[in-house]
Amino acid sequence: MVDYAKESLEIHKKFKGKIHIELNDKLESLDKLKLYYTPGVAAVSLEISKHPAKLPDYTWVNNTVAVISDGSAVLGLGNIGPEAAMPVMEGKCLLFKYFADINAVPIVLDVHSADEIIAAVKSIAISFGGINLEDIAAPICFEVEQRLAKELPIPVFHDDQHGTAIVTLAGLINSMKITKKSLSQCSIVIVGAGAAGVAIAKLVKTYEPKATITVVDSKGIVALDRKDLNDSKKSLLSITKTQTGGSLTDALKDSDIFIGVSNPNLLTEQMIKSMHKDPIIFAMANPDPEIRPDLALKAGAAIVATGRSDYPNQVNNALVFPGIFRGALDHKVRQITGDHKIKVAQAIADLVDNPSADNIVPSLGDQRLVSVIAEVIV
Amino acid sequence: MVDYAKESLEIHKKFKGKIHIELNDKLESLDKLKLYYTPGVAAVSLEISKHPAKLPDYTWVNNTVAVISDGSAVLGLGNIGPEAAMPVMEGKCLLFKYFADINAVPIVLDVHSADEIIAAVKSIAISFGGINLEDIAAPICFEVEQRLAKELPIPVFHDDQHGTAIVTLAGLINSMKITKKSLSQCSIVIVGAGAAGVAIAKLVKTYEPKATITVVDSKGIVALDRKDLNDSKKSLLSITKTQTGGSLTDALKDSDIFIGVSNPNLLTEQMIKSMHKDPIIFAMANPDPEIRPDLALKAGAAIVATGRSDYPNQVNNALVFPGIFRGALDHKVRQITGDHKIKVAQAIADLVDNPSADNIVPSLGDQRLVSVIAEVIV
Repeated sequence: MVDYAKESLEIHKKFKGKIHIELNDKLESLDKLKLYYTPGVAAVSLEISKHPAKLPDYTWVNNTVAVISDGSAVLGLGNIGPEAAMPVMEGKCLLFKYFADINAVPIVLDVHSADEIIAAVKSIAISFGGINLEDIAAPICFEVEQRLAKELPIPVFHDDQHGTAIVTLAGLINSMKITKKSLSQCSIVIVGAGAAGVAIAKLVKTYEPKATITVVDSKGIVALDRKDLNDSKKSLLSITKTQTGGSLTDALKDSDIFIGVSNPNLLTEQMIKSMHKDPIIFAMANPDPEIRPDLALKAGAAIVATGRSDYPNQVNNALVFPGIFRGALDHKVRQITGDHKIKVAQAIADLVDNPSADNIVPSLGDQRLVSVIAEVIV
Repeated sequence: MVDYAKESLEIHKKFKGKIHIELNDKLESLDKLKLYYTPGVAAVSLEISKHPAKLPDYTWVNNTVAVISDGSAVLGLGNIGPEAAMPVMEGKCLLFKYFADINAVPIVLDVHSADEIIAAVKSIAISFGGINLEDIAAPICFEVEQRLAKELPIPVFHDDQHGTAIVTLAGLINSMKITKKSLSQCSIVIVGAGAAGVAIAKLVKTYEPKATITVVDSKGIVALDRKDLNDSKKSLLSITKTQTGGSLTDALKDSDIFIGVSNPNLLTEQMIKSMHKDPIIFAMANPDPEIRPDLALKAGAAIVATGRSDYPNQVNNALVFPGIFRGALDHKVRQITGDHKIKVAQAIADLVDNPSADNIVPSLGDQRLVSVIAEVIV
């Protein structure tokens, strides 16, 4: 077993981070500074001042996104603050470069209210071709993304919500082919009502309005009779129509699909046995899933997926966001719509030629991923 | 004569900007993502959450600065707005990389009041090891820099002020050696009372308290009897002690040194002839100086400097800022003090072995520049 912690600390320290800046052109002599800086650059500035829409033609803005977090919901670590979020954001930027050849700049914010985050992002947004929001806690993340997407002329994408929702839907689409079930007749239990849980519920319902969805949070089933629901959880009620609360055990009885974006080890074999035949288990808590895949299979699961690369079926949003932004930047798309999200999920699912219980989504190494996703972001 | 404008537009379009992101380490297999991203990166985040001061040890923050402008005073172009400022900021980032191997990220702000600029910069500052403020109009630039320098734990440097002031002082130090004059006995006329003019007046006075300094703005001599002075111009009165106003012609009569950070062609041969013997002319308006060097020499100037690379004596702040930030980052210096600025000016002047009328400052290509400057930023 590799000691990831020790090795990771070492490699981060050795390379002093993960990314750096390089020049696009060789400066074989100082003379070229007259073109790239004064006096020549003035002509470029004047051209853009006359035609602001040409900004991407002459600057790195055309291929650059900001990866922005306030550090309030980092990985499974929670609210560890912006400094501690930086290595994760820089890691995300590494993924952007590695998978989609996009320049991504890690920016951590030392402000935490929705209004302050929105003001900060709006004030710097011109500098970028897109905004990837990351690891911002629910429910603030919903208001932040909605307002920014509405008010900014560049794509804004909260990956924890939509990246996760899209790849989950892709996995579900192929799971239906394998189990011969239909989402329209499935009872789906989503555990976790944060950024990912809410977005999954909404996207699945958009894809298949007849799907029956129940959402469970740490206090039980999200239902009309709950008095403690915040606005984003209340908004789930129009999707789930759940009248009365109950426990996770209650919710799972006679259900078809478990989707966990919650906490390690909260799903038991007994619960899986209470589900309909051939249950589908997406246990995506990171790094430790809601149940160990071998236990889920032993309890009768037809398909088990996790967020991890060391088990089959890695349902990971890194399959999604590089292609989304590649497409948005290349095609100057300003809004990532519900329609885009469904098309991307379908495109990801379609990449798997012969879906099987161990092969519901493409691997991260699939070279076709970014381009097929980018193609539908138009 | 090269058509800089056309060539510059072409080369910017060809390379789609001037900088891009690269990875520090080769990712020969996806396995390494387990170290750079989940699950390994969690250990780095936890380490930083325990010891925030270690942020630079594990991330690119140790060698990264933000180049920030609101586009309100760009080059000689004025208030052309943030989009049009972007090519200049990206150019500055190119200089940072080329001269000092520093990662610099161009950030243009879509807010313009002092309070908003300060709020925006403070909200993102944790993401960087230093802040280079650029092309922000006076007088807002003064408040922005002062408050940020006070409130942020990283170096904040407004290059238009201090870079220009430092390189000007370096040029003056060597000009004294050549003309056998002494700054303590010189009458110095600074034309332009914006960011650069104010900073030059303050730095020269700090270096040589006995120097006689007069500042002239577009309305004439900045003097006690003027009723139209803003706070930053009023603050000059404690340096200049000038009681009564007058014209540029009045100011220059019997003076020794002209320092122009103003507008093209406002200095006449007649004015130079009215100055003391062996006048020193720094005509630094960009791209067109306050007087053409050949005309200044013809009128009797002992030394002529400009901001341009195609004349001798290029008094350009690109001589300064790469070394300042190299030193601040390497030595974890949080404030660039007046003492630092004078030491840097002295270090730059000392690099010229045999100062002459055509050789008062080192060339931009001098390989020793960054390291001798960085050495005194401790």
